[in-house]
Amino acid sequence: MCGIIGIVGKGPVNQLIYDGLTMLQHRGQDAAGMVTWEDGRLHLRKNNGMVRDVFHTRHMLQLRGNVGIGHVRYPTAGCSSAAEAQPFYVNSPYGICLAHNGNLTNSETLKRDLFIEDLRHLNTESDSEVLLNVFAHELQQMRKLRLEVDDIFNAVSGLHRRCRGGYAAIAIINGSGILAFRDPHGIRPVVFGQRQTEQGTEYMIASESVALDVLGFQLIRDLEPGEAVFISMDGELHTRQCADNPRYAPCIFEHVYLARPDSIIDGISVYKARLRMGEKLARRILRERPNHDIDVVIPIPDTSRTAALPLAYELGVKYREGFVKNRYIPRTFIMPGQAVRKKSVRQKLNAIELEFKDKNVLLVDDSIVRGTTSREIVQMAREAGAKNVYVASAAPPVRYPNVYGIDMPAADEFIAHGRSVDEICKEIGADWLVYQDMDDLIQAASKGNPIIEAFDTSCFTGEYVTGDVSQDYLDQISCARSDDAKNQREAGEDNLRDLTNSA
Amino acid sequence: MCGIIGIVGKGPVNQLIYDGLTMLQHRGQDAAGMVTWEDGRLHLRKNNGMVRDVFHTRHMLQLRGNVGIGHVRYPTAGCSSAAEAQPFYVNSPYGICLAHNGNLTNSETLKRDLFIEDLRHLNTESDSEVLLNVFAHELQQMRKLRLEVDDIFNAVSGLHRRCRGGYAAIAIINGSGILAFRDPHGIRPVVFGQRQTEQGTEYMIASESVALDVLGFQLIRDLEPGEAVFISMDGELHTRQCADNPRYAPCIFEHVYLARPDSIIDGISVYKARLRMGEKLARRILRERPNHDIDVVIPIPDTSRTAALPLAYELGVKYREGFVKNRYIPRTFIMPGQAVRKKSVRQKLNAIELEFKDKNVLLVDDSIVRGTTSREIVQMAREAGAKNVYVASAAPPVRYPNVYGIDMPAADEFIAHGRSVDEICKEIGADWLVYQDMDDLIQAASKGNPIIEAFDTSCFTGEYVTGDVSQDYLDQISCARSDDAKNQREAGEDNLRDLTNSA
Amino acid sequence: MCGIIGIVGKGPVNQLIYDGLTMLQHRGQDAAGMVTWEDGRLHLRKNNGMVRDVFHTRHMLQLRGNVGIGHVRYPTAGCSSAAEAQPFYVNSPYGICLAHNGNLTNSETLKRDLFIEDLRHLNTESDSEVLLNVFAHELQQMRKLRLEVDDIFNAVSGLHRRCRGGYAAIAIINGSGILAFRDPHGIRPVVFGQRQTEQGTEYMIASESVALDVLGFQLIRDLEPGEAVFISMDGELHTRQCADNPRYAPCIFEHVYLARPDSIIDGISVYKARLRMGEKLARRILRERPNHDIDVVIPIPDTSRTAALPLAYELGVKYREGFVKNRYIPRTFIMPGQAVRKKSVRQKLNAIELEFKDKNVLLVDDSIVRGTTSREIVQMAREAGAKNVYVASAAPPVRYPNVYGIDMPAADEFIAHGRSVDEICKEIGADWLVYQDMDDLIQAASKGNPIIEAFDTSCFTGEYVTGDVSQDYLDQISCARSDDAKNQREAGEDNLRDLTNSA
Amino acid sequence: MCGIIGIVGKGPVNQLIYDGLTMLQHRGQDAAGMVTWEDGRLHLRKNNGMVRDVFHTRHMLQLRGNVGIGHVRYPTAGCSSAAEAQPFYVNSPYGICLAHNGNLTNSETLKRDLFIEDLRHLNTESDSEVLLNVFAHELQQMRKLRLEVDDIFNAVSGLHRRCRGGYAAIAIINGSGILAFRDPHGIRPVVFGQRQTEQGTEYMIASESVALDVLGFQLIRDLEPGEAVFISMDGELHTRQCADNPRYAPCIFEHVYLARPDSIIDGISVYKARLRMGEKLARRILRERPNHDIDVVIPIPDTSRTAALPLAYELGVKYREGFVKNRYIPRTFIMPGQAVRKKSVRQKLNAIELEFKDKNVLLVDDSIVRGTTSREIVQMAREAGAKNVYVASAAPPVRYPNVYGIDMPAADEFIAHGRSVDEICKEIGADWLVYQDMDDLIQAASKGNPIIEAFDTSCFTGEYVTGDVSQDYLDQISCARSDDAKNQREAGEDNLRDLTNSA
Repeated sequence: MCGIIGIVGKGPVNQLIYDGLTMLQHRGQDAAGMVTWEDGRLHLRKNNGMVRDVFHTRHMLQLRGNVGIGHVRYPTAGCSSAAEAQPFYVNSPYGICLAHNGNLTNSETLKRDLFIEDLRHLNTESDSEVLLNVFAHELQQMRKLRLEVDDIFNAVSGLHRRCRGGYAAIAIINGSGILAFRDPHGIRPVVFGQRQTEQGTEYMIASESVALDVLGFQLIRDLEPGEAVFISMDGELHTRQCADNPRYAPCIFEHVYLARPDSIIDGISVYKARLRMGEKLARRILRERPNHDIDVVIPIPDTSRTAALPLAYELGVKYREGFVKNRYIPRTFIMPGQAVRKKSVRQKLNAIELEFKDKNVLLVDDSIVRGTTSREIVQMAREAGAKNVYVASAAPPVRYPNVYGIDMPAADEFIAHGRSVDEICKEIGADWLVYQDMDDLIQAASKGNPIIEAFDTSCFTGEYVTGDVSQDYLDQISCARSDDAKNQREAGEDNLRDLTNSA
Repeated sequence: MCGIIGIVGKGPVNQLIYDGLTMLQHRGQDAAGMVTWEDGRLHLRKNNGMVRDVFHTRHMLQLRGNVGIGHVRYPTAGCSSAAEAQPFYVNSPYGICLAHNGNLTNSETLKRDLFIEDLRHLNTESDSEVLLNVFAHELQQMRKLRLEVDDIFNAVSGLHRRCRGGYAAIAIINGSGILAFRDPHGIRPVVFGQRQTEQGTEYMIASESVALDVLGFQLIRDLEPGEAVFISMDGELHTRQCADNPRYAPCIFEHVYLARPDSIIDGISVYKARLRMGEKLARRILRERPNHDIDVVIPIPDTSRTAALPLAYELGVKYREGFVKNRYIPRTFIMPGQAVRKKSVRQKLNAIELEFKDKNVLLVDDSIVRGTTSREIVQMAREAGAKNVYVASAAPPVRYPNVYGIDMPAADEFIAHGRSVDEICKEIGADWLVYQDMDDLIQAASKGNPIIEAFDTSCFTGEYVTGDVSQDYLDQISCARSDDAKNQREAGEDNLRDLTNSA
Repeated sequence: MCGIIGIVGKGPVNQLIYDGLTMLQHRGQDAAGMVTWEDGRLHLRKNNGMVRDVFHTRHMLQLRGNVGIGHVRYPTAGCSSAAEAQPFYVNSPYGICLAHNGNLTNSETLKRDLFIEDLRHLNTESDSEVLLNVFAHELQQMRKLRLEVDDIFNAVSGLHRRCRGGYAAIAIINGSGILAFRDPHGIRPVVFGQRQTEQGTEYMIASESVALDVLGFQLIRDLEPGEAVFISMDGELHTRQCADNPRYAPCIFEHVYLARPDSIIDGISVYKARLRMGEKLARRILRERPNHDIDVVIPIPDTSRTAALPLAYELGVKYREGFVKNRYIPRTFIMPGQAVRKKSVRQKLNAIELEFKDKNVLLVDDSIVRGTTSREIVQMAREAGAKNVYVASAAPPVRYPNVYGIDMPAADEFIAHGRSVDEICKEIGADWLVYQDMDDLIQAASKGNPIIEAFDTSCFTGEYVTGDVSQDYLDQISCARSDDAKNQREAGEDNLRDLTNSA
Repeated sequence: MCGIIGIVGKGPVNQLIYDGLTMLQHRGQDAAGMVTWEDGRLHLRKNNGMVRDVFHTRHMLQLRGNVGIGHVRYPTAGCSSAAEAQPFYVNSPYGICLAHNGNLTNSETLKRDLFIEDLRHLNTESDSEVLLNVFAHELQQMRKLRLEVDDIFNAVSGLHRRCRGGYAAIAIINGSGILAFRDPHGIRPVVFGQRQTEQGTEYMIASESVALDVLGFQLIRDLEPGEAVFISMDGELHTRQCADNPRYAPCIFEHVYLARPDSIIDGISVYKARLRMGEKLARRILRERPNHDIDVVIPIPDTSRTAALPLAYELGVKYREGFVKNRYIPRTFIMPGQAVRKKSVRQKLNAIELEFKDKNVLLVDDSIVRGTTSREIVQMAREAGAKNVYVASAAPPVRYPNVYGIDMPAADEFIAHGRSVDEICKEIGADWLVYQDMDDLIQAASKGNPIIEAFDTSCFTGEYVTGDVSQDYLDQISCARSDDAKNQREAGEDNLRDLTNSA
């Protein structure tokens, strides 16, 4: 998962993009980047680290210009190496920078084609570099000194025909303007908005509407699946549907966990969706256990709080914040001759005994992935004196890998992989475990927005909306994502391979 | 406000102290420091910044030893300069390092005396340097090659006789052990605990019990007012009452705002105290407005959530988290030729319209100090569509400066300074404003702990428990704390004046 | 002036290139860069600063591969901005990195053509980026998936036809090998050599032979004007003359000042050339002043020592090192409220009075450019007690700007600009001033190498060997090089504009 | 060997001290430090590294004040750890900072006494910390609120009575002024001077006169053995002889190698002393080999150039700089899986073949210590084609350790240790080897200065002027200095142990 942003302003945009990236920081904390455009020159700064660590005053001073784009990165199969910060740059044609959120499922084929057809060299494993070069190739084929808006949209159409997967991308084309486009299923989110200033209208594009809110931009709408928006350097906005068969099937995990509650995605308030998840989960609990003996509902901070509160009201049970989240997580140093301590959930959460002592507690989490954290939290609840520990998950069991840009472990590292709910319950040591129904989740997420035709729910169901995900591909992903593979990669990490970032 | 920690372990303590300081990070984010003891040598690392920024692997590698102390600092009148990180060191006698939380109200006199009596030079404005040198002087006068435990406690007694104010201090005496002591009114908190390891019993001292919890230490108890605890290098624990007329009168602001909810201070659960504050405040609301038309209770995150929840239950009104806190706050860069944007509460909070639209909302905050944030939040609530905006403060009006180590503005910068509640209400733009009663706050904070004789409530009442705070002193403090004074200090800030930290 | 290096080895080349760049450090201390090639990946590190500051262990660990190139940069009109470190990179076609030493005199035209013909965007002012893109364009036109050696040489031929000026360039072509080429007049130097290892023959290319010596490579020969050398990734060496009308006319300033004395350029030992300059200058002095009263010959360290020694022998006068060079030059800090001290030659040199007291001294310098240093040194000699101060320059008066890659001030900042020798003598305050004859300098530099047809002596004569330097171009250069222009550029310096270096 | 500096100025001294330290950089490149005094506050900056690396603008801005001292450090037995930068600080009494050049031979005893008598803790191995505490103790015993000048001089007398070894120290006493003193044998050098400004007379103290020259101060004179100079904060200068039996016996190695040629030490020009060494060595060569067949005299750069030139004149043989010194020495990186290359003299020197080819060359060095470099250089000369290689050393064989502050290897690592001159000659592979006579060296160094009673020549003769150096002490030193010991120390290096420098 990553966050993207772009602004065509009437004054300097560096601080605005910085602020916007900060608001998207929850979508990616591994790397950040910004490129601004000033009279035919591009100024780029990117590096590993959080927004506050990547941009210093000396960089901001040089990120001049009224137009720019930005990116925050979370490592996924498609952008895993710590070195591959975005945006990426090609100088031919025109000078283009691109950043994206998502994952291409046919990047290996694309890479091969790019070299054979266009002799384009890719120096990293990032599929953003692939996406940029596919786009560059489409534009270059037109061999035009002066690009028309339709040329740009035609290039996006060409890209849609070649690329598979989920992607929401933003690009700056030197001399033309800023372009954003969304894959034909609308898997990853992207919105645009505007604000009026004395100098004229400014436009902003972002992964989530919250970034617009905080910067004082009014949300216009989401980009539709397959649609592209282009804003010229002097502030003219154009949109066009560039896909042949677009279909609205966004990723449901944005509502479960990824997005901020105060964002509105595809017309749906994430906050409201989560409230409804809580209500529906409560009703399921009442159905399954009409005579439940729950004394208190306790959320696992922070995401699940939104769902846990109406769940408690619906159950008619007290809601209490029995876990205090440690805002500052200590780093573990490796000291020669000392055993490395296991990282423990205790460094992240602390239980307030009062709320557990001699009670039947229902712990609410947004979802359960590996289950190791759940196991530790159940144990903490017991040590704090709970009589019985029940666990509720606001999402169904996670059983299948995500191939559209969310960082998840290999399939066999999911606790629900090949286990029944009872077996999972036993595994995490709970006295009872209840999951949200798939249909309830879909209804919770879609209510009030009839244009959504479907969701990508592949994590839960194994059905991939793009319809072209083979077992071979899944095996390959699974292999790349295993912890072993990750450890190996980290050891041989290479910060100098991305030739646009040699810090 | 600052945080202190000390451990006498049976193995390396650097990681433990690092973890503990991280758990106390909320008590001070301006500077951090650690000193460890190894065979007669002291290893010190301190600097401005948060714990994660101050200690790198290269420092941890050198912070060897089984005994050490640590500190996090929040700037106050007594330790305002950004350069004056703690612990401080003197080499005569013995080699002593000391760190403290609090503020001395007679430090000017002490400084003068130290020079005249003992020719001791103080190179900073920090009263921790004063406290250390007073203690060093008391020890030196004994002229002993070998210190007995009683010598050390006698030195603390001497210190208590000379020092005025609130202080909880921790020191490492080369060749002897670790000492902690608390002022005779117990204004600032400090606890100690132990854990069993295969190598023997380890002891830990900390500002708050939460640090013990997370590190797996069992809380033994709070240090009593005037009491000192000494743990020798080989792990023998001694305590002694060192004050002539100790009196239990801790700072009530720890319960209102400063401490973590999962800490237990002077036998009182901060979490429970805050629950009670919510309940009592609800009853007051019901007394004042039996027919209130409140639709929803919304806390101002994060501290007030604990009190707002029972308040809502007690009122029989829905509790909703209508504000989303931005975890990542953007930094504002000063760019040449660009107007500096005002820092806005909007960068910290975002309202979820759904919860405000056409409703009478009660916003709950832990306390109101300057009132500027309250004003902006009320405004945000209105813009989100609230019909009426009511505000409740879990603490009484803050009207007087704190002189015992909490960083607050000058008296005339308090919104409640010279204003009635109605006037304050108008000032922040609310439709109604209600404060906690002083007595209710005291009862909420003291319930269940009969040993508390009184609280220092000076912020609210102007009565200072030490009984020796003159108007002159308050004027001088006021002057030093005004925003103008702070701005000036920052401009001329000097990181090299503390000779033990010249990074 | 810059330095370039390239190695095709049989083992890791990072340390070798590092060592080689260190040996070329005198050719450029403003920036350094290295790119290595490993199995289809390029690893790049470059930044402002000296070699020792740019490459740290963490970079070296990642600069893996048996093939690589490197660069050190001195700012010139052609690569003036502090941000534009080399090598530069393009990903299309193939992935190519290039670094060069020299200056193109038609770069503005080339830039325009590159965009119009090939839509190639150039993001910096560096003519190395121009050169790279011209070369990339020539290669791309062939549209070959697999490059033959002749394709590469043909691309160099195409480049020679388009580019004007002086350039010695080195490039790494992903999947092919390393290429170096020299402009058709051979203005800037470049040599190649080899060494035998157990794994096979390794090849090295460098600006000066001294880099080969120190790394244990045997000099094969200089590249001829217009010639290119290509070494494939697996170590096969090819050379070809790629220019239509090559002519041997190297820059004579390499011998006067730029090159290390222990280098051999175009078959001529720089050391011997300087000895001969001293001898010839002595003879001129004897001709002009057969009855001279010189008591001692004192060189201005360091370059002129080589010429001053035989000059003294030839005159039959004592040679003494009367000036001690300060190896460590203090930096001048700008402190608020303090007057900025003028930088003085006194910080660089210190006179030993003994050698000046009551003597007629002849100070020998390699050349005189602005004359400000000469004036100060003459003054120092007088203050040290010299009776008469004579000055000899081993080169003729510098009167015209260099357009082939040497950093010199604007023409009107030369002391010899529009002044007779007598006027210059008066200006620097000397009692007598003698310059080398132009013919003597040429003979000193060319002796023993009949293949040299001519030298570029444009600094002294205003005749530019490429024959195409217009007054317009000179005016434009002059403008860019004036101190005012430099100061302005420094203020607005932009490190982020080179998209391959955003540190 | 270290360098010290102190200035009592009429304006800010930070830049002056910075410049002065740069001029003394040859005396120590391992660490640097500066402390300034401003209205009762001391500002300190020190760290490992060269002057240019230790002081940045942000430090200079804070090093305010018209009075200050500085230090550069070269590691010796007495200040070996890389962390122990100077000056050191004690706050009791008065606040004193001290830096010194030299070595105490009774520091272990002093440390013990300091703890027993005064409970003073020393946290490092540096004998500067010892010297400071001895001085502090002497001052403290007087128990005076206001120090008179005589009190300070009396403290120096007390220090002289307790300390053994060679030391030239500088201290700043808060509220009083700057003090410098020299050990009773005057082993290490220190001079003072003055300059007139519009604001009044400024005074400067430094290890070498060259620092005064470059800063525009006039040398007044050397401090005499045992003498102290005190300059009050307002610029009054006092001197006093503080030793009971002073005796002029400075270290002769300053003239051989340590000092800059343009310094004047104890009234003797180092430059002239070296010229005389060359002349005397020439005469010895003529005596030993009246029919020598030397074709050319070639110095080993840089120090020996001064002596080699008159040597060549005296022999009537050509002088040529046949070795080019590499100004930039590459660093060797340790890469995993790659063999570490041996550091070679070839990285430092390059031979110009022309000057060696078929000639009998006499290589001149200032002294021969380990002999490894000599061996490599002889080999280089042969490879460059020399017929015969002769070596001359301007100093006698180095056979005994230095205990007065010069960093030298353990005795058994000297090539001359237990070897005859013939054996040494064979060991370094020369065809002939000649050393300076001891008497000639003494005459060369003392000529023209009758006040010098003797030199410390212990490196050559094993006679230590302080008369109290026992074999036990030498063994202990030898042990600490062996390469093995050094390697061990480096591994466990601790930058945090000096509590006044925790960067």
